Amino acid sequence: MSSTPRIDKTVVADAIYGKWKKERLEGRKLAADPRFQTVVGQSMDEHRERVLEQLHLLVEANAIQRAFPTSLGGADNHGGNVAGFQELVFADPSMQIKSGVQWGLFGAAILHLGTEQHHQQWLPDVMSLKLPGAFAMTEIGHGSDVAAIGTTATYDAQAEEFVIHTPFRGAWKEFLGNAALHGQAAVVFAQLITQGVNHGVHAFFVPIRTPGGQMLDGIGSEDDGVKGGLNGIDNGRLHFTNVRIPRTNLLNRYGDVAPDGTYSSHIESPGRRFFTMIGTLVQGRVSLDGAAVNAMKGALAIAIRYGSERRQFAGPDGRDTVLLDYGQYQRRLLPRLAETYAMQFASHKLLETFDEVFSGANDTDENREDLETLSAALKPLSTWAALDTLQEAREATGGAGFMAKNRLTGWRHDLDIYVTFEGDNNVLLQLVGKRLLTEYAAQFKDGDVAAVAKVIAGQIGEGAARFGLRQMGQSIADLGRVSRSVDGVRDPETQQELLSDRVETMVAQVAMALREGTKGASKEDRAAKGAEAFSAQQAKLIEAARAHAELLQWEAFTEALEDFEGDTLTVMTWLRDLFGLGLIEKHLEWYLINGRLSGARAEAVTSYIDRLVGRIREHALDLTDAFELTPELLRAEIATGIEAERQQEAQAYVDAQIAAGTWPVHE
Amino acid sequence: MSSTPRIDKTVVADAIYGKWKKERLEGRKLAADPRFQTVVGQSMDEHRERVLEQLHLLVEANAIQRAFPTSLGGADNHGGNVAGFQELVFADPSMQIKSGVQWGLFGAAILHLGTEQHHQQWLPDVMSLKLPGAFAMTEIGHGSDVAAIGTTATYDAQAEEFVIHTPFRGAWKEFLGNAALHGQAAVVFAQLITQGVNHGVHAFFVPIRTPGGQMLDGIGSEDDGVKGGLNGIDNGRLHFTNVRIPRTNLLNRYGDVAPDGTYSSHIESPGRRFFTMIGTLVQGRVSLDGAAVNAMKGALAIAIRYGSERRQFAGPDGRDTVLLDYGQYQRRLLPRLAETYAMQFASHKLLETFDEVFSGANDTDENREDLETLSAALKPLSTWAALDTLQEAREATGGAGFMAKNRLTGWRHDLDIYVTFEGDNNVLLQLVGKRLLTEYAAQFKDGDVAAVAKVIAGQIGEGAARFGLRQMGQSIADLGRVSRSVDGVRDPETQQELLSDRVETMVAQVAMALREGTKGASKEDRAAKGAEAFSAQQAKLIEAARAHAELLQWEAFTEALEDFEGDTLTVMTWLRDLFGLGLIEKHLEWYLINGRLSGARAEAVTSYIDRLVGRIREHALDLTDAFELTPELLRAEIATGIEAERQQEAQAYVDAQIAAGTWPVHE
Repeated sequence: MSSTPRIDKTVVADAIYGKWKKERLEGRKLAADPRFQTVVGQSMDEHRERVLEQLHLLVEANAIQRAFPTSLGGADNHGGNVAGFQELVFADPSMQIKSGVQWGLFGAAILHLGTEQHHQQWLPDVMSLKLPGAFAMTEIGHGSDVAAIGTTATYDAQAEEFVIHTPFRGAWKEFLGNAALHGQAAVVFAQLITQGVNHGVHAFFVPIRTPGGQMLDGIGSEDDGVKGGLNGIDNGRLHFTNVRIPRTNLLNRYGDVAPDGTYSSHIESPGRRFFTMIGTLVQGRVSLDGAAVNAMKGALAIAIRYGSERRQFAGPDGRDTVLLDYGQYQRRLLPRLAETYAMQFASHKLLETFDEVFSGANDTDENREDLETLSAALKPLSTWAALDTLQEAREATGGAGFMAKNRLTGWRHDLDIYVTFEGDNNVLLQLVGKRLLTEYAAQFKDGDVAAVAKVIAGQIGEGAARFGLRQMGQSIADLGRVSRSVDGVRDPETQQELLSDRVETMVAQVAMALREGTKGASKEDRAAKGAEAFSAQQAKLIEAARAHAELLQWEAFTEALEDFEGDTLTVMTWLRDLFGLGLIEKHLEWYLINGRLSGARAEAVTSYIDRLVGRIREHALDLTDAFELTPELLRAEIATGIEAERQQEAQAYVDAQIAAGTWPVHE
Repeated sequence: MSSTPRIDKTVVADAIYGKWKKERLEGRKLAADPRFQTVVGQSMDEHRERVLEQLHLLVEANAIQRAFPTSLGGADNHGGNVAGFQELVFADPSMQIKSGVQWGLFGAAILHLGTEQHHQQWLPDVMSLKLPGAFAMTEIGHGSDVAAIGTTATYDAQAEEFVIHTPFRGAWKEFLGNAALHGQAAVVFAQLITQGVNHGVHAFFVPIRTPGGQMLDGIGSEDDGVKGGLNGIDNGRLHFTNVRIPRTNLLNRYGDVAPDGTYSSHIESPGRRFFTMIGTLVQGRVSLDGAAVNAMKGALAIAIRYGSERRQFAGPDGRDTVLLDYGQYQRRLLPRLAETYAMQFASHKLLETFDEVFSGANDTDENREDLETLSAALKPLSTWAALDTLQEAREATGGAGFMAKNRLTGWRHDLDIYVTFEGDNNVLLQLVGKRLLTEYAAQFKDGDVAAVAKVIAGQIGEGAARFGLRQMGQSIADLGRVSRSVDGVRDPETQQELLSDRVETMVAQVAMALREGTKGASKEDRAAKGAEAFSAQQAKLIEAARAHAELLQWEAFTEALEDFEGDTLTVMTWLRDLFGLGLIEKHLEWYLINGRLSGARAEAVTSYIDRLVGRIREHALDLTDAFELTPELLRAEIATGIEAERQQEAQAYVDAQIAAGTWPVHE
């Protein structure tokens, strides 16, 4: 024991908190307060009422004002706001997401898409929750493809009003929090039509209900009813039949209509305008990413604690073996612990970039591009990983893990939707993939490759070009320096080379396949051939985007190592290696097929992972202790030591029987 | 279109129903009856009451009597009973599992572990539900390791009674359906102690509650409360404080105690006796396996129907593209369709084996061994696949998939526990793995290898030797004939060789590693070294067991092809190839490392899968239609054609606007 390194848990904890520790601790203080916590077994109606009440309590606790302007009583603290929000997953994800709807979507849309007058007029009531609102973007007919929504806002110059209309069932706004019951207004996304021209999607402030709950004329609402999770939120549908709103209710930061109906915008290209407006909504993805990491921390804190106490099947000493001493159990949980750390550090980088952009401290095009790409790359991986980790923890804790009182299933139910809302994970990764391709093609002057860029642009619309990939460009510039004969697989340089080589090669392979697929096509056939070639490469492109995200996570973890020293650095380096080699092991077939690893070296990866897992086992509890998840935050009976108590009681009984000579012999 | 083959859906449907079509249709008729269906949004209390009532309705419908003796009004139809049961997943999994507790566990234990007098005394009331009961095997301290449970049944010869006792908290019976509210008796598993000797685990009939709901003296019950799913079942805990029952309440088929306290059994070895008693409970695994396959069928019928109608993002023709035409979407769903077919056919084989054994038609040791192994191999893979498929379907249908009215999340919540109850999946696979090892070692006379068998036996207890693996033995006999230079990867012989080679090689590798790990160990060290080596190999052994199960599924699918001809055979062969090559692709790194496939051939696997997926896309709807899941069984709004209707309405609106010249031009 004495020679085993031990981590400095406080130092690691600080790294886990990241830059906004204060706000995180404030968020955790709320989450530790029973008033903010889920009451298991409540009906949907009770849960909805409770969550509404909790939102009022958040206002009282001054917990939601941070992101708003100081002039309105806020703090202009964007990073801190999201950090605090991310901790609310420990209280109740329904409360978290409903507050996200109210302040992160409805309020943020007014803030970021509206202008001064809108801020003065509505934000105080939004902030105080006097004005609960919905964010009416998604339609039942168009989810991921926001640009194609069917709702129209047609300008009537005579009346100086917009007419909001959902002309068919597919245009109904759907799955909106606050729409079924509590919303009194909505930010409605609609095609702005004036003087017979459609200027694309814009956002409008539309009152929908009286404070007493009566729907306003021309507006209908339906309740989505019970969902797979998040049942504390009143999701519902909204439809509009020629509903008139004043011209000034257009949130006009990026596009405006003069009283006479003349449209104007300082962003000339409609595609770029659309992506700029949508880009302000990146906050949702950033928020979910960190919330997902928090759920992973919770899951592992529970499962590893239980696995350290629970015993099953007699070992060689006659006593039952501790679960975490089983090779399979270690293999199930410890790589996920490494992944959780990697995702935590990547999440911090994302949040810092977000804060730089939104605070204006470093609001450059380059940084905005990084933010877009990072969020589209990281949110899919962390939200999926959260579901997988919660499930693995559930299974690793057996029947106990299935009990609501042990938290795992509740989180899993609620977080299920995180993988498809605020951007469907596959669609987001595809976006990253297309940007990787665009950037790749831009490296070459060759006409054939430039043609690839055209095909891609055809698939993604005009906005594509705007979002370059600075970091990727950098990686691609390094192409060619990947050594094919590296000596080991353990050193970080090799890990990085293997991971980045894979991204680059996959992108290049997809680009070449697209080029082959469209080569020699006539002008008329070009679009169809391009679409066909793209569909054939789609799965690979998404895989390339995933590889890119994994590289970013690995780099974030590696960068974080700079903050550690001594034993802590040793253990954290093992953990980083476990993450890196785990990625390589996961994609071993790729490295083998593409000649990056020999069979022997591939096997060396697996055996080194086995050794790392064995070493880290001794630190598993320290590494989850460093999450500093108090009993009030975890609230899982099996993480309270109850299992160890039961084991001791049973052992004491047997010992006493043996001592008394009353223990029956076995047949 | 004319030259495209089409499957004969009726023929395929019959293959999907299998041998007990009649009973499956009877089960489906019940599931289509609203009285048996889940009411979304009910509270736990309401749901529990409803499910109890449903159980009474099942009795009335004569739906549960099949498995019981004809002398008691049953039909001695074991296969048909399980087949009908498996269809109830379409009604409500809570009802399904609660009926499984009452008749498949509580009743079946009396039937299979008890003798004539017990049958006469209790089964009529069990069958009529006059006597609801719990199956009290699992303890909070011992789940998977049933042999080590703490509850004791100590014989008092004076009173001719057994004293049932849970001496510490860890011995409390836990997670038992019917324990919290409705059970009036329980079959309690306890260590049978008489004349100072512990004869191992036996089952006892113990009354626990009055019909009015009062707990009997010395018996306590606690409610498990809300769970991650199956909330229509009253799971709970039971504890016993020196509760006395008559000697004759011992279910004495495999072991008995005479009035004077003398123990007797016709099975001499306590280990073998234990495994024989536990072996009668295989029915639960068989039942869950087919229920899981049914849930997969439901999930894919919903997601593929929706994916065939739903459109998103404009294609080259200007119209939005149908989801199922996207390469990634096909890759997500179609391999799962192939897997569902494979698992369905494997499930049929398992059920037939079960029926042969339980009907007595072919109750040989060999067949019992096959049954044990098959169920331990197949249940883990199908229950895991069900969760994955439900989740993929949920994500593929986006926000709609998250709505309770579309069924997917409800099934996923309920089926979550299927992967750890009736045998934790990893523990079951480990059992299969150990049997593979035992069988492997038995092939050799070599002392070193025989030593491996000893190590294994040490890890698994005396029962191990009993359960050989006939099929595996056969496979192992073929070892060596695997060609390393096969020409293609498409022909079934190659698929089979690749799949079986992997099982055999992995087992041999684990065996050799265990041998190395214990070589030269002193007698005292042997156990510790063996445990250490075993833990290091555990993950690989479980993977070998999984490979074995995959091979069995592949073989079942291939055997099923014999029933098809013409176009149907063509398409079903593609589907089998997709399954087989999908397995090989999943384990590509293994084939590459072990020199079974070159890089080029490995890539050929993937490109052939891509082609297969493209071909099968045209048959996806036919292949899910063949499940014959009527709207009453699916009850998912998005599988009713509502999406296509919305699309048509939207298109008609746009067309009319364009025709009228009122469609605004785009900026």
